Amino acid sequence: MTARENGSEFLPKFDSNGLLTAVVVDARNKDVLMVAMMDQVAIDRTLETGTAHFHSRSRGRLWMKGETSGNTLAVIRILVDCDQDALILECTPAGPVCHTGAQDCFYRELGKDGLKPKSS
Amino acid sequence: MTARENGSEFLPKFDSNGLLTAVVVDARNKDVLMVAMMDQVAIDRTLETGTAHFHSRSRGRLWMKGETSGNTLAVIRILVDCDQDALILECTPAGPVCHTGAQDCFYRELGKDGLKPKSS
Repeated sequence: MTARENGSEFLPKFDSNGLLTAVVVDARNKDVLMVAMMDQVAIDRTLETGTAHFHSRSRGRLWMKGETSGNTLAVIRILVDCDQDALILECTPAGPVCHTGAQDCFYRELGKDGLKPKSS
Repeated sequence: MTARENGSEFLPKFDSNGLLTAVVVDARNKDVLMVAMMDQVAIDRTLETGTAHFHSRSRGRLWMKGETSGNTLAVIRILVDCDQDALILECTPAGPVCHTGAQDCFYRELGKDGLKPKSS
């Protein structure tokens, strides 16, 4: 195993755009709420503030989740994967997470004939 | 909302490399097991076979998880996010998921002074 895989040093592995994947999980019930991208600045700001920040590709800038809606994410714990190119942010959400107003972004399931509302 | 956000048509939104993010969740306990990338071929093969396939960036080809180790992922359900650029694969794993031998890839947590083993 490499130092990245078994070491205690945080060595985030960014893609060619300087980004890695962040999976936001509800710390209360383990639901996956959303997936977003982080750059080094977003990681630093998240660690400093305890509130989730991402890099918005559409806006081309740092984005604090909830900066407009108020639906921020309080970060309880961050997990790092083997090759350090993905993070899990275990969070307590202040409100609905999805910009559509849904509780989370994964409100549909895929079948062989398209999408349908997620069954509970 | 757009057709991509509220429609019943599966319109996967691939990045400039033809990939989207797949989050593998254990269908039994909702643990996030791994994060990988899928292209259209990987999605098609996963839907056809019920076994998770990904696009390996390091190998530059289609990759059936477990093709070498035997630790395949039986896909129970696939969820799609609002803008259809991320999927959740709810799976039953045949064995440890991580190539390091760990049960899942997220075996470390991040603190202000680096990484440490995940507390349970």
